[in-house]
Amino acid sequence: MTTGVWLIGARGSVAVTSMVGATALRAGLAEPLGCVTELPELAGPALPGLAELAFGGHDISDITLEKKVENLVAAGVLPARPAAAVADQLAGLQRELRPVPSAETQLEVARLIAQDIDDFRRRRGLERVVVVNVSSTEPIFPAGPEHETLAALETALATGGQVLPPSSLYAYAAFTAGCSYVDFTPSTGARLPALRELADREGLPYAGHDGKTGETLVKSVLAPMFAMRHLRVRTWSGTNLLGGGDGANLADPAANAAKATSKQRVLAETLGYQPQGTSHIEYVDDIGDFKTAWDLITFSGFLGTQMRMEFSWHGCDSALAAPLVLDLARLTAAAHAAGRGGALTDLAFFFKDPIGEVPHALAEQWAALVGFVRGLHAPA
Amino acid sequence: MTTGVWLIGARGSVAVTSMVGATALRAGLAEPLGCVTELPELAGPALPGLAELAFGGHDISDITLEKKVENLVAAGVLPARPAAAVADQLAGLQRELRPVPSAETQLEVARLIAQDIDDFRRRRGLERVVVVNVSSTEPIFPAGPEHETLAALETALATGGQVLPPSSLYAYAAFTAGCSYVDFTPSTGARLPALRELADREGLPYAGHDGKTGETLVKSVLAPMFAMRHLRVRTWSGTNLLGGGDGANLADPAANAAKATSKQRVLAETLGYQPQGTSHIEYVDDIGDFKTAWDLITFSGFLGTQMRMEFSWHGCDSALAAPLVLDLARLTAAAHAAGRGGALTDLAFFFKDPIGEVPHALAEQWAALVGFVRGLHAPA
Amino acid sequence: MTTGVWLIGARGSVAVTSMVGATALRAGLAEPLGCVTELPELAGPALPGLAELAFGGHDISDITLEKKVENLVAAGVLPARPAAAVADQLAGLQRELRPVPSAETQLEVARLIAQDIDDFRRRRGLERVVVVNVSSTEPIFPAGPEHETLAALETALATGGQVLPPSSLYAYAAFTAGCSYVDFTPSTGARLPALRELADREGLPYAGHDGKTGETLVKSVLAPMFAMRHLRVRTWSGTNLLGGGDGANLADPAANAAKATSKQRVLAETLGYQPQGTSHIEYVDDIGDFKTAWDLITFSGFLGTQMRMEFSWHGCDSALAAPLVLDLARLTAAAHAAGRGGALTDLAFFFKDPIGEVPHALAEQWAALVGFVRGLHAPA
Amino acid sequence: MTTGVWLIGARGSVAVTSMVGATALRAGLAEPLGCVTELPELAGPALPGLAELAFGGHDISDITLEKKVENLVAAGVLPARPAAAVADQLAGLQRELRPVPSAETQLEVARLIAQDIDDFRRRRGLERVVVVNVSSTEPIFPAGPEHETLAALETALATGGQVLPPSSLYAYAAFTAGCSYVDFTPSTGARLPALRELADREGLPYAGHDGKTGETLVKSVLAPMFAMRHLRVRTWSGTNLLGGGDGANLADPAANAAKATSKQRVLAETLGYQPQGTSHIEYVDDIGDFKTAWDLITFSGFLGTQMRMEFSWHGCDSALAAPLVLDLARLTAAAHAAGRGGALTDLAFFFKDPIGEVPHALAEQWAALVGFVRGLHAPA
Ligand SMILES: NC(=O)c1ccc[n+]([C@@H]2O[C@H](COP(=O)([O-])OP(=O)(O)OC[C@H]3O[C@@H](n4cnc5c(N)ncnc54)[C@H](O)[C@@H]3O)[C@@H](O)[C@H]2O)c1
Ligand SMILES: NC(=O)c1ccc[n+]([C@@H]2O[C@H](COP(=O)([O-])OP(=O)(O)OC[C@H]3O[C@@H](n4cnc5c(N)ncnc54)[C@H](O)[C@@H]3O)[C@@H](O)[C@H]2O)c1
Ligand SMILES: NC(=O)c1ccc[n+]([C@@H]2O[C@H](COP(=O)([O-])OP(=O)(O)OC[C@H]3O[C@@H](n4cnc5c(N)ncnc54)[C@H](O)[C@@H]3O)[C@@H](O)[C@H]2O)c1
Ligand SMILES: NC(=O)c1ccc[n+]([C@@H]2O[C@H](COP(=O)([O-])OP(=O)(O)OC[C@H]3O[C@@H](n4cnc5c(N)ncnc54)[C@H](O)[C@@H]3O)[C@@H](O)[C@H]2O)c1
Ligand code: NA
Ligand code: NA
Repeated sequence: MTTGVWLIGARGSVAVTSMVGATALRAGLAEPLGCVTELPELAGPALPGLAELAFGGHDISDITLEKKVENLVAAGVLPARPAAAVADQLAGLQRELRPVPSAETQLEVARLIAQDIDDFRRRRGLERVVVVNVSSTEPIFPAGPEHETLAALETALATGGQVLPPSSLYAYAAFTAGCSYVDFTPSTGARLPALRELADREGLPYAGHDGKTGETLVKSVLAPMFAMRHLRVRTWSGTNLLGGGDGANLADPAANAAKATSKQRVLAETLGYQPQGTSHIEYVDDIGDFKTAWDLITFSGFLGTQMRMEFSWHGCDSALAAPLVLDLARLTAAAHAAGRGGALTDLAFFFKDPIGEVPHALAEQWAALVGFVRGLHAPA
Repeated sequence: MTTGVWLIGARGSVAVTSMVGATALRAGLAEPLGCVTELPELAGPALPGLAELAFGGHDISDITLEKKVENLVAAGVLPARPAAAVADQLAGLQRELRPVPSAETQLEVARLIAQDIDDFRRRRGLERVVVVNVSSTEPIFPAGPEHETLAALETALATGGQVLPPSSLYAYAAFTAGCSYVDFTPSTGARLPALRELADREGLPYAGHDGKTGETLVKSVLAPMFAMRHLRVRTWSGTNLLGGGDGANLADPAANAAKATSKQRVLAETLGYQPQGTSHIEYVDDIGDFKTAWDLITFSGFLGTQMRMEFSWHGCDSALAAPLVLDLARLTAAAHAAGRGGALTDLAFFFKDPIGEVPHALAEQWAALVGFVRGLHAPA
Repeated sequence: MTTGVWLIGARGSVAVTSMVGATALRAGLAEPLGCVTELPELAGPALPGLAELAFGGHDISDITLEKKVENLVAAGVLPARPAAAVADQLAGLQRELRPVPSAETQLEVARLIAQDIDDFRRRRGLERVVVVNVSSTEPIFPAGPEHETLAALETALATGGQVLPPSSLYAYAAFTAGCSYVDFTPSTGARLPALRELADREGLPYAGHDGKTGETLVKSVLAPMFAMRHLRVRTWSGTNLLGGGDGANLADPAANAAKATSKQRVLAETLGYQPQGTSHIEYVDDIGDFKTAWDLITFSGFLGTQMRMEFSWHGCDSALAAPLVLDLARLTAAAHAAGRGGALTDLAFFFKDPIGEVPHALAEQWAALVGFVRGLHAPA
Repeated sequence: MTTGVWLIGARGSVAVTSMVGATALRAGLAEPLGCVTELPELAGPALPGLAELAFGGHDISDITLEKKVENLVAAGVLPARPAAAVADQLAGLQRELRPVPSAETQLEVARLIAQDIDDFRRRRGLERVVVVNVSSTEPIFPAGPEHETLAALETALATGGQVLPPSSLYAYAAFTAGCSYVDFTPSTGARLPALRELADREGLPYAGHDGKTGETLVKSVLAPMFAMRHLRVRTWSGTNLLGGGDGANLADPAANAAKATSKQRVLAETLGYQPQGTSHIEYVDDIGDFKTAWDLITFSGFLGTQMRMEFSWHGCDSALAAPLVLDLARLTAAAHAAGRGGALTDLAFFFKDPIGEVPHALAEQWAALVGFVRGLHAPA
């Protein structure tokens, strides 16, 4: 049972770390740290093995995987040893990467994207393919009446013009190709009614949005702690310094806006009110992939006594994201195999901005995830 | 239904903050922040109201409550306004405080302690009394054969000599007086087989040990986060700077040892292994009750990538502890009223070093607590 | 020899803390902590005594000093005890405060401002008056040809329209009234050629800009440390969270721009190059006057090894600024008395954005200050 | 003019980083970051060039340089590229390393040590040799009457028994061999009257003690900042987490004591009083050479307002120390060449626990250093 993972943004840091990492793990070169689906609570027969994943994808960049791996090693994201050990497999991985097709209308582009994915499936004899969006974060996209129904959408797509942002066009193409779809970014992706109609019609699962890897992960356990202790959070103010590919892109205020919104949602949802403060993102080239986040939290306790907490987090963004990409691919493929269509709200554990009315406290998300996976493993 | 709260260490910071705070809350002078039992998930008919608690206690010190409150206001622990508003009730509170009795044998001391508590119950017409130990942390106490059975213990107590440390003698006295017992300190308290035998025989509930108010609270949500994400914690090293009454006492290496052990247990229990590093406690008079804890956590992720997190916590120890003392008194009284005897393991949420084989992750402790309280509220 | 201190923004936090503080110090209610001119290296006969300062000023607000002091006590800026002890002197201080005059032209406004100051001098029998600008930070002001010469300026001022920003109009008025002028803010103040011409003609000293009280103070010792050790600073990125009066004002991006520029200058000047990173200011109402700054510094050492430092600073802005206002008033008055006119570049120690080609390393600024003050104390 | 650098502890982290680094710098493989003597303020003709240093030394360990370099690269102390580039020169370096001689009496051991150094000088045709102690920190050593005069010392040394700790025996041997001596450790070294008598008699310079590379460096600029601003430091409490060779050794409380004393001296000396708090050192194997120090500073300002600062420092100890070892060797050799004997108190800039009544503020130490070096460069 081989499962395909088709990565949008396949030459980016997260995608390449995922592919190289899966290759190194398959070769037994490292423990599967960071892979949630390798924990005893989640492992089991329903999930495709790490060794059974086949990778391909689209990217607008033509940087070679050799060069990208070299950069990731220099930046300390990929350790030198496993990277060297898989060097001879990079050419094979690279053969499965495709440039983004272009055409007169977005409908035609979507058809070509779907065809690339379908070719991959046939060529590699895959049972199913999960499309995972790990491409650059897009500016916030305004939805209109043409995104309300599938019929309206397909009419619009056929006329030319930019009807869908890239993330959503990939989602459309994925669904028409019979694939499930995971949005690891804060971009629009499958979030439009017309696309959900399509996924539902086809019985295809989808998950998102925006992988939860750093500051928000910490928030998702600290905010519930304050709530459970009846401590009133007054200020929660965060600064995120990051470089790397996505950092440069997030320096654009439009893309930044989408991300900053994702990052604060957890507070209002777990505290029941919105404390003061914002989540500030700043691009610092020198920091590279080793993001530094600093958060200040001020809170009131018994009789109004003022207290405070600070944390700083020095995480390697791609090293935190890559194993989650593998987890999400395995879980979504298993859901697809089990006939689960529609929004996979039980995967909220993985996302900053999860789909649906779901808990935002990490422990509750974990409980939902464990229940979901047990359901998959259980004999029908 | 008035409930008595008998505080061991009744002139200490935690005790006085609890009594003054309850008085201020009763007068509507502040919101019940920090009081867990006031959260909607826990509130209900089975718990005695905050306004229905009557206070008394023992202390070896004879500092007046007026003086102690003055000190706590100067130190920023008690806000000036509510403290001033309850000034005229301090004399009434003080009338219920008793010096620690002395006698030839510990058996006789225990009898006198029990009598003080019993007098309080009668005088105030209380339905039941919870004894809460908030006195100074004791050095680690070596248990012997005389602590194995109640019979052996009572024989030894009658002979003179220090058979029990104070915390355990109070527990013994509490149980003989028909009271439940809460150990908010890391001291031995009710942790001896002979005392458990007594509590079981009398059908009396008890809870402990060591209120979880700062660094350990944070650990109890961060350590599970690392575990759920399959991140390997390599080092967890903490420094606690604190002054105040208990700080001076903890500067004594013997008392310190008991506390430091309590504080690291959560890591091994939630991670499944013991990372490197220790929890270091240092007395700094100037810091007073506003403890500063700093923790460094280093961890490995995908392919072994090294990452780190730091936090610093500036909490007011007594302001964090006092509402939990009120919570514990209410919960233990309700358990007593409901006929629950023995160790209240479902109160692990409140303790650094909880009794029993219980979860150490805060979210799981919360779930247990909610279940327990629902059981109390449910009509029989 | 009584010296007048005329405060622009006299009902603001810094001004009121300065006036109340000087009053409390005069009454012996506190040690003169924070007052640099009270250090043995600087104290001496040339400086007017703290007890010899008389206060007055302008403000556009009409908040009473009683109310303002109450707010500052509630915010923890002014300790309750000295504030209470000087309560009966607030009315006297308040009598010397004036609303900002208005008129047809700025020339006429300046004349009325000068007249208010002159009235104060006569009424109180003062030898001289120092005007200190501690009013709200202004947006960056574009200079034009009318600011090049005094003649051009006075022609323009007579015609109506906003020729000068308030800070500069106060400087103009101060100089025409024969007063020295200190700019404690990043606003334009005396920074225009026409105003310097006027000060030079009148032989009046002036100093500025922007009191150095927190993050920049720390930078002024850490940046030289890296330079002296030949360590290459790669990133220096700061976040400043602040509330209070000035915080709200700095939330305005225009005012913010002036401040952020002031704050980074020290790096380029002491390192000889500009590291990556910015100084970010964010308004958080709840933080009030207790600013929190967090800075991340990454640097390279021997053979390129990457290292890092972080600091967080929790300073009370007004408590840090107020004693410097008193220092600057004393020093500038002494310079005036000694016949020193023009820019007091030896006062760079006090400023984020000092006038002239001066050292930015704190230790060098200190040496210059000590030399300058010794010169004042030395018998002619 | 080739200068010898004889390293005591020559197979340790600092020593090997120094030797490999000098070799890499000579080959132009890196900028001389961290080397203070390469700054324009200090560079000049009197100092031997980095390329003119020849290395040798003693060590009790027999780890090969190849293995040690491999360890330092794995630990991130030495970057892989320069380490690889100098691999073929390690064998040559290693040929100059000697085991520590043993003999019946310490006098005889000293003679053999001196002979090893002398052989090195002849074999390599060196003008002079600087002996630098970078061996493990010793426990505090109690001085006695036999250390008072050279005559008494030499009598005692001849009798057998441990009269001198190793660091002092090396100093004795260095001086008898006509070499200058630098103590980069907190050990006793040349600190005994008898040894100073010897150095003075021979006209040999010496410097020490304990290289200032991390927390103490930061203290030496921050403490003066508080002093210059008349801010009263109340608490200064530090935690140092470190692994690596020296870390393991410092875990021994005796060695630790020597270091902790060195580290606090700067506070009392620059503030004029001793604030509360200690400097705590903890061994954490996983941290390795990348020490993490965290310091909390609480201070009082105007009218007693309480404020605080925290910093954390993540420095690579050996990468900070190695360039200073090169600096000290060059400076001491130049002083020797210029006929300067006795304690080089102007090198206080480099040390935690400098010799003599010298300033502890970094900026003043820098000024002294610049003056000293100018004197060396100036034509006689
Ligand atoms: N790393 C994390 O921790 C993390 C967490 C949450 C979300 N994310 C999101 O994951 C995404 C990838 O992050 P990254 O660090 O790998 O970024 P990256 O810049 O290294 O990679 C993005 C890749 O997407 C490609 N791309 C851009 N537009 C495309 C298009 N229209 N079609 C196909 N490819 C396109 C780029 O060429 C690039 O190779 C970002 O959106 C980021 O916000 C990352
Ligand atoms: N404050 C917190 O956050 C917190 C958290 C967990 C545990 N605790 C524990 O709570 C206890 C109280 O802390 P605190 O800050 O109030 O300390 P404290 O020193 O202010 O008060 C302790 C009181 O106990 C009294 N006492 C000592 N020995 C006694 C005895 N044998 N009998 C009766 N009274 C005695 C002392 O006189 C003192 O008044 C400590 O053991 C502490 O470790 C506190
Ligand atoms: N506190 C510090 O540490 C610090 C450091 C450097 C600079 N400063 C500067 O000092 C100034 C004062 O700070 P603050 O915290 O007292 O602010 P604040 O807002 O409390 O006070 C400013 C006062 O200026 C008054 N004002 C505004 N416009 C005026 C005008 N045209 N004429 C007369 N009065 C006017 C306001 O009404 C207010 O009372 C700010 O510009 C700030 O940037 C403060
Ligand atoms: N790295 C820094 O930042 C720094 C700063 C100040 C002082 N120091 C001091 O420098 C010294 C070296 O530090 P390191 O990190 O290289 O330690 P290390 O443990 O890596 O090296 C010490 C070496 O000394 C050798 N040694 C021990 N006893 C000896 C003896 N009697 N004769 C000869 N050799 C002996 C050991 O075998 C070892 O090779 C320590 O004393 C340390 O305290 C280091
Ligand atoms: Na901090
Ligand atoms: Na930090």
